[in-house]
Amino acid sequence: MWFTSDNAAPVPPAVLAALARANEGFTPGYGADALTLQVQDRLRHLFEAPEAVVHLVTTGTAANALALGTLCPPWGAVFCQTEAHVAVDECGAPEFFTHGAKLVLVDGPQGRMSPEALRATIAASGQSLHNVQRGAVSITNVTEAGTVHSAAETALLCAVARDFGLPVHLDGARFCNAVAATGATPAALTWRAGVDVLSFGGTKNGLMGVEAVIFFDPAKAREFELRRKRGGHLLSKGRYLAAQMLAMLEDHRWLDWAAHANGMAARLAHGLAAKGIALRHPVEANILFPIWPEGQSARLRAAGAAFYDMPAPAGHEGARLVTSWATTESEVAAFLKLF
Amino acid sequence: MWFTSDNAAPVPPAVLAALARANEGFTPGYGADALTLQVQDRLRHLFEAPEAVVHLVTTGTAANALALGTLCPPWGAVFCQTEAHVAVDECGAPEFFTHGAKLVLVDGPQGRMSPEALRATIAASGQSLHNVQRGAVSITNVTEAGTVHSAAETALLCAVARDFGLPVHLDGARFCNAVAATGATPAALTWRAGVDVLSFGGTKNGLMGVEAVIFFDPAKAREFELRRKRGGHLLSKGRYLAAQMLAMLEDHRWLDWAAHANGMAARLAHGLAAKGIALRHPVEANILFPIWPEGQSARLRAAGAAFYDMPAPAGHEGARLVTSWATTESEVAAFLKLF
Amino acid sequence: MWFTSDNAAPVPPAVLAALARANEGFTPGYGADALTLQVQDRLRHLFEAPEAVVHLVTTGTAANALALGTLCPPWGAVFCQTEAHVAVDECGAPEFFTHGAKLVLVDGPQGRMSPEALRATIAASGQSLHNVQRGAVSITNVTEAGTVHSAAETALLCAVARDFGLPVHLDGARFCNAVAATGATPAALTWRAGVDVLSFGGTKNGLMGVEAVIFFDPAKAREFELRRKRGGHLLSKGRYLAAQMLAMLEDHRWLDWAAHANGMAARLAHGLAAKGIALRHPVEANILFPIWPEGQSARLRAAGAAFYDMPAPAGHEGARLVTSWATTESEVAAFLKLF
Amino acid sequence: MWFTSDNAAPVPPAVLAALARANEGFTPGYGADALTLQVQDRLRHLFEAPEAVVHLVTTGTAANALALGTLCPPWGAVFCQTEAHVAVDECGAPEFFTHGAKLVLVDGPQGRMSPEALRATIAASGQSLHNVQRGAVSITNVTEAGTVHSAAETALLCAVARDFGLPVHLDGARFCNAVAATGATPAALTWRAGVDVLSFGGTKNGLMGVEAVIFFDPAKAREFELRRKRGGHLLSKGRYLAAQMLAMLEDHRWLDWAAHANGMAARLAHGLAAKGIALRHPVEANILFPIWPEGQSARLRAAGAAFYDMPAPAGHEGARLVTSWATTESEVAAFLKLF
Repeated sequence: MWFTSDNAAPVPPAVLAALARANEGFTPGYGADALTLQVQDRLRHLFEAPEAVVHLVTTGTAANALALGTLCPPWGAVFCQTEAHVAVDECGAPEFFTHGAKLVLVDGPQGRMSPEALRATIAASGQSLHNVQRGAVSITNVTEAGTVHSAAETALLCAVARDFGLPVHLDGARFCNAVAATGATPAALTWRAGVDVLSFGGTKNGLMGVEAVIFFDPAKAREFELRRKRGGHLLSKGRYLAAQMLAMLEDHRWLDWAAHANGMAARLAHGLAAKGIALRHPVEANILFPIWPEGQSARLRAAGAAFYDMPAPAGHEGARLVTSWATTESEVAAFLKLF
Repeated sequence: MWFTSDNAAPVPPAVLAALARANEGFTPGYGADALTLQVQDRLRHLFEAPEAVVHLVTTGTAANALALGTLCPPWGAVFCQTEAHVAVDECGAPEFFTHGAKLVLVDGPQGRMSPEALRATIAASGQSLHNVQRGAVSITNVTEAGTVHSAAETALLCAVARDFGLPVHLDGARFCNAVAATGATPAALTWRAGVDVLSFGGTKNGLMGVEAVIFFDPAKAREFELRRKRGGHLLSKGRYLAAQMLAMLEDHRWLDWAAHANGMAARLAHGLAAKGIALRHPVEANILFPIWPEGQSARLRAAGAAFYDMPAPAGHEGARLVTSWATTESEVAAFLKLF
Repeated sequence: MWFTSDNAAPVPPAVLAALARANEGFTPGYGADALTLQVQDRLRHLFEAPEAVVHLVTTGTAANALALGTLCPPWGAVFCQTEAHVAVDECGAPEFFTHGAKLVLVDGPQGRMSPEALRATIAASGQSLHNVQRGAVSITNVTEAGTVHSAAETALLCAVARDFGLPVHLDGARFCNAVAATGATPAALTWRAGVDVLSFGGTKNGLMGVEAVIFFDPAKAREFELRRKRGGHLLSKGRYLAAQMLAMLEDHRWLDWAAHANGMAARLAHGLAAKGIALRHPVEANILFPIWPEGQSARLRAAGAAFYDMPAPAGHEGARLVTSWATTESEVAAFLKLF
Repeated sequence: MWFTSDNAAPVPPAVLAALARANEGFTPGYGADALTLQVQDRLRHLFEAPEAVVHLVTTGTAANALALGTLCPPWGAVFCQTEAHVAVDECGAPEFFTHGAKLVLVDGPQGRMSPEALRATIAASGQSLHNVQRGAVSITNVTEAGTVHSAAETALLCAVARDFGLPVHLDGARFCNAVAATGATPAALTWRAGVDVLSFGGTKNGLMGVEAVIFFDPAKAREFELRRKRGGHLLSKGRYLAAQMLAMLEDHRWLDWAAHANGMAARLAHGLAAKGIALRHPVEANILFPIWPEGQSARLRAAGAAFYDMPAPAGHEGARLVTSWATTESEVAAFLKLF
């Protein structure tokens, strides 16, 4: 009953098997190996984006911050949701990699960014020499609240960005879960909607630490490569990142794992609702925010459940539960029995 | 006959086995897992440094640049050897992570830093408000020329740094090879000689991409952790880094693999000398810089050998050969037969 | 009738006279001249702070950003009021000079920072490795809304900062006006209340471009000097900055000029109130924010008045009026006659 | 007999008079005043560059570092002479404003940059992802050794830069002295030779602290303005910078003052040679590097002379003498009498 995060789970056996297969013979270093070339092609194919430039890194923070550094100048503003990972959970990595850009927070319901709020916030931002200049928009899908932006919603946000001439970054640490949740194609949720650069997460979906940064517009790809090397994020033995990502992309695993995680979350949500437990946000992907009576958290932990605490109204306790490819039906059932 | 770099080799089976063993159940993230705690202890033990603080990252560039960022202020100078990896091969990562420090080059024979040159260079550096201030010294062992600093030589360099009140970083991307070459203990080559922070390389010695940064003085360890997170170098699934490093530390593998690589290089050097091929530098670890007659490189490559070209006098061709844990005696013999 | 800003005014004759007097003979450069030493002493005396370290720069943005760079690490948060100059009007200079710190906005009524909001905001800020760390508090007095923090209010804010172990910067671009408004001593409004570093403004009070940065705790003064040089803010001919600041400090001019400006603003406020014009904020120093009926702005400008537009409710127009040492009673009277 | 630096002198009366004239009435701030517009036109005219963009700052370090920040990316190399002010005397300001570029040193005789050495250094710099990329060339004229680059020499250096596609910055802290020394036009020494951006010095030629940055290619001018504001280098009361620079540009004063300084240096050089004193470098502008017998420095200082010490061979003492607009014939004669 381990629900702290999708990064607490082990990796699927297919990932280990792929590493073993990749471990044959000598290869060129620094991303010039055959598996890296193969995974780049595979992702271009998955995203129906033959011109896209794809690079692998090991953390979501690196993917996001390197992408934002490439899109936004030091004197720029990155418009992002108030609770966005880039704003709250990366110890200022975007500020570091942009050399000092400002993250300007945009509100929205249920962890989503609202197009109206985005438009109003950008419009209200100054444009004189005295102000930080408008730089980029960063959307998150799945959001930190566990909600999902549909392709249409994403397109609305991108349209606002386009009205102001701003490029769009999508933090897709849980992008596979968003695809599973919406049923939209990867292309529909990204470049067809207007996204310029995607952080495509593999780690939270089952890899050891592999994310892809996908530039749908290749114009800035060389700069990205220099930033990646300079950031210490160019691994010499690229094959071990590529092999994992390829394993995830084969046989629809990327979608199956995410769909399984989403399904387990739905099952938890259904079960909790049946017990009268309120949820702070709609459960659309693999994250839940239940609010239960005081004392419940200790009882659950005593029974072996692991999760993070969250704020809650008086007399209650809040929690965050995250499911993963490794969450089982029996775990869910056992957890629900504790109520 | 793949001699381009030690990072071109596959990883030893023990590494894959360790990953498989680590892949059981759920763990806390971000370095709070049991394997990470274990590898930290194991390295403290190996270095006879019970107070040392140990953190893992995935690249040598990250290890070096994060360490230098922690030791040297933005307005500081890092004194390093002219050919040092931090100066030449990291696309300015030290400048990025220090927020703009200056790398001041120190000469020395055979890729080594000379204590006299170090002292003269530091002494000649200005100390007024108009000058970059003295910040840190960065030594490399094994050097980029494939030579080795003995414990006594390291101590001489550190003594110079101490005379000026400067902390010392040691880039040990091939530290295991240096231990194997010198027969000194890890402690003797580092903190006993006066080193403050070590980049302890695992990748070139057989891991997929794992380096440890070891702070012998724990004073700046918290700052390092913040810099690591902010640099996107804190992996959520720490167990997969720790498991690899543990596999290397068990059963003297760290030393066996390095000693094997050094031995293969010695065998190559011996064989080349017997063929009358000159070597640019003494072969003390696992890197060779042969200079052979024009036309030889093409012949070798046609026969399947892989290596990097290096500058050479007219009528000759230079090359760099690097051996690894995976280099075999038969490969070496086959290569030598091509002369 | 020029009310755009206090930086639109000429400088008082005493400033020109001081420049002429300073223009005798040769002097050492870079702040080692006699006038610079003299102004440092004079400011230490004015602030009853014999240990304080004083340095001159030419802009308020430089003073603020250099001070914040010295107080707050790159991974730190600067807590400041939502409308603070450092947050809104400096094109990200604090982010640049801190190497990427985050400005976290704190609300408060009438442009002031509220101690309760400051405490709540700091308390709510995360402290894990994933979050930007608490770095410094920056207060503004006179505020951007033209209101003033009393010594007691300043002390309350500093007490909150101290509870969290944070240093306090005070942006005093209009500090002289705050002294004139409150009747408190310079010491009472700064270090006695708990302020660590003050940006002491001369430019808006009548100088050509001179600000002093005053470190009441001299511990970080050397670092400040290096940051100033590295920022291009160490002028070689220090005497011309020092002479101006000395001219302002002599004969109570610093207070007289500010009191005059405040008085003219009060007169404007009184006159506007008599005409039934609402003011967005209480007029406590030398800035007013009147809201008048639509069409009034054009009429005023046609008659020769200069001021900035501000947002206003429908059917109205907002403006910002700033008075200075050079504003005259007759100007004020002429302006009021236009209503 | 004050020869420490040209920045130790007072300013000419015309500068004070111009400040007094500028001190009339109210003006728009931040460089939108009439005098700033006028000085921009005047410099465009002087340089025969009607498209050039001109901005004023207060220090040479700011001019250079802001210009280099605009020309060279964070991962770039700035190729400059070994003794260049940007490399040696600015406490890392170029590294700060470029966000971490590397200054790569190019040798050359007598403080000059040699085109051959420049070409060789650029050609030798790596171009892989692992290396800092070629960014910009920075020339100095007058050099730190007091020598001068002719228009033809400047063109040769710029041609090398152009061969590699690199923009050229010219540090002209003593540019007026270079014009006076060469007899070339300002245009011939800059854009006609291939210079893209000039730091045009006023301070060392008699102003209180005013330098112009001139972009002959206006493409990056807006970015420069944002960098200037963000660096705290946009003064609100632009008229006082502009008035000084205009005073210098009127009536050929810029050239007269520089020619006078050069003439006084020539007179010193002639006199010293007559006394058998060797000079380290040819005296081409307003700086001399005499080498005299041990003991002479103390004797000169006892007699009231002021200058900086420089390294010298055993048994000798080295010095640096700098003349200015304010150096008089009688001072020179009195100094020479001390030998």
